[in-house]
Amino acid sequence: MDKFTVYYHLQCSGQEANQLARRIAVEQTVEMPEHLVTDPWIKDNIIGDIVSVTEIGPNCFEFQAQYHADITVYQLPQFLNLLFGNISMLTGIKLAQIEFPPQFLDQFQGPRLGVEGLRKQSGVLDRPLIATALKPLGSAPETLAEICYQFALGGMDIIKDDHSLSNQSFCTFKDRVSACMQAIRKAESETGKKTLYYPNVSGSVELLGGQIEQAIEFGAAGVVLHPFIMGLDLARHLIDRYAGQLSFMAHPSMSGALTQNSHGIDAAITLGTILRLTGFDISIFPHFGGRFPFSEEGCLDISAKCREKLSRLKPVFPAPAGGMNVQNIKKEAHVYGADVILLIGGSLYDLSPDLKANARWFSESLQ
Amino acid sequence: MDKFTVYYHLQCSGQEANQLARRIAVEQTVEMPEHLVTDPWIKDNIIGDIVSVTEIGPNCFEFQAQYHADITVYQLPQFLNLLFGNISMLTGIKLAQIEFPPQFLDQFQGPRLGVEGLRKQSGVLDRPLIATALKPLGSAPETLAEICYQFALGGMDIIKDDHSLSNQSFCTFKDRVSACMQAIRKAESETGKKTLYYPNVSGSVELLGGQIEQAIEFGAAGVVLHPFIMGLDLARHLIDRYAGQLSFMAHPSMSGALTQNSHGIDAAITLGTILRLTGFDISIFPHFGGRFPFSEEGCLDISAKCREKLSRLKPVFPAPAGGMNVQNIKKEAHVYGADVILLIGGSLYDLSPDLKANARWFSESLQ
Repeated sequence: MDKFTVYYHLQCSGQEANQLARRIAVEQTVEMPEHLVTDPWIKDNIIGDIVSVTEIGPNCFEFQAQYHADITVYQLPQFLNLLFGNISMLTGIKLAQIEFPPQFLDQFQGPRLGVEGLRKQSGVLDRPLIATALKPLGSAPETLAEICYQFALGGMDIIKDDHSLSNQSFCTFKDRVSACMQAIRKAESETGKKTLYYPNVSGSVELLGGQIEQAIEFGAAGVVLHPFIMGLDLARHLIDRYAGQLSFMAHPSMSGALTQNSHGIDAAITLGTILRLTGFDISIFPHFGGRFPFSEEGCLDISAKCREKLSRLKPVFPAPAGGMNVQNIKKEAHVYGADVILLIGGSLYDLSPDLKANARWFSESLQ
Repeated sequence: MDKFTVYYHLQCSGQEANQLARRIAVEQTVEMPEHLVTDPWIKDNIIGDIVSVTEIGPNCFEFQAQYHADITVYQLPQFLNLLFGNISMLTGIKLAQIEFPPQFLDQFQGPRLGVEGLRKQSGVLDRPLIATALKPLGSAPETLAEICYQFALGGMDIIKDDHSLSNQSFCTFKDRVSACMQAIRKAESETGKKTLYYPNVSGSVELLGGQIEQAIEFGAAGVVLHPFIMGLDLARHLIDRYAGQLSFMAHPSMSGALTQNSHGIDAAITLGTILRLTGFDISIFPHFGGRFPFSEEGCLDISAKCREKLSRLKPVFPAPAGGMNVQNIKKEAHVYGADVILLIGGSLYDLSPDLKANARWFSESLQ
């Protein structure tokens, strides 16, 4: 009998904890008053098992639950529905940890490249990869292409579109990707150094396949997707469909609704484990001490979940971003170890008006 | 120049409010230090406008922002990204209200049936519709079909699958929908009373079209989708593709991550306005005083957003659920007016073991 073991952290009094645990076990499964469930098979196999409820802090309890894996139909949507669907509408419940049955993980291909594959793709075998973003929104394709060119000349390993660059009339997807790939090729021919370009794909469902195919056609290394806007299973579907032709970078836009401290799903599970199941090769998340309220411990948890052993699934490349300081990068980056993509956007533009020199500074700062 | 006007409620001190407003205007658009944005067109048209920042309570400020509609490419994913994408990863920001430019709304077809269309489909013209759910998860198709039959005999207008019923090995989608539709037809032939059945569609992306087509083939009135799991734009896509053949009910599973009180998107916008843009005919949300911490005011806001004038978009049928008490239903339902679907699940099973009599009691309680 395959089961998930799930740990929820409950913010409540000692009197409420057992009651809330029982309520979760029922709400997430049979969703009806428990005394009405008379079928012994349903009682034994469908209602969540309450393994334990343990005090772990002041008004904080860990509820260890188990769910029968068959409930999830071994697919992401029903997996999310079972673990957090209805209780998302309560408060003070944090999904803190998941232990997966192997048969569930077997259904997912995970990252096709992951850390090792991306190292091969980029040619960078032994140090953190350095990445930046094309911005600002509103720039014409040729402006972004010139920025792209300068950054590539300066030695960036990865250049991605800002996540707001979509298919706006003032900068269409096709014109941008075409111009930026030309810039990348020109720089590569001058320096011999490889740079991977990731255009941002955020169109409506009817347009996603076409945008990804254009990215492939123009020779992009990968694409940026927004799994917390498009839906995790749609991202998984696109990755299954196009893997082998490019790699996939997840942007955390809208994930913050899920990863709030008091209620939701732990950020490391969300931006590590779940994105790994989905098949992303790279997970962008906010670096601590930057513009977003993420702690050093939280960021190390995310990068650990990206890279820990998880059945046969390859590791995801963690990509801390969002306010990392290039002038202190060696010290800041040290905590993540070598298998990390350091993504510096705004502050790389701020070093000097010479973007090529800024990229070179970034690259040399790590040595 | 088409613009969105967006109201964010900020939980912060007076000193921080203006700074946070500026930060949002920049974070959601150019995403780089503002002094680096030198292009006057980008400064004027891309960075969000700060219309006002007004104190509305203790440590609570309303920030009225405006964004250029072209940034959204007039599509849901980039619309969500612009309004709340990155700032979802901050805390204490609530998207409280949106005023849409007409050209944005023009891109969306909205509910095809809505209140009036569903009234025609159900034959119930002048009173609230009554609805219930098939449960518990774990039941065999024939068990659910028998429950369905009893509820239909008792006069239910709408019967939906519980949102956990997917395509589990112990109760496949096809067997369930086939058995329940037979039950519905048998009851209809005996009573002459029409009952609309909504199977729950929650498969992985590759399976969604096939499941919806099976529902159509078996003659279901509509389907239940989970837009906050599958992604709003995928729901919109499916509705655009299959509208005219069935109607669409939104389940709020996972929406609670967005609609927390302190940070997120207002529940009425989420479960009213946004689902309406997406094209749902029915929006299920937690009734106040039930199992979920929603207030009476909050629920009336949701139902108001479902039904208020919004360009040419038809109203969505609000469907409060989740702990509504059938024994006090007339009083509880009164607040919503007639254009409401009263969805009672668990407590309808709890009245007595005679489900047909329970349904009849529910129906007669409203008279």
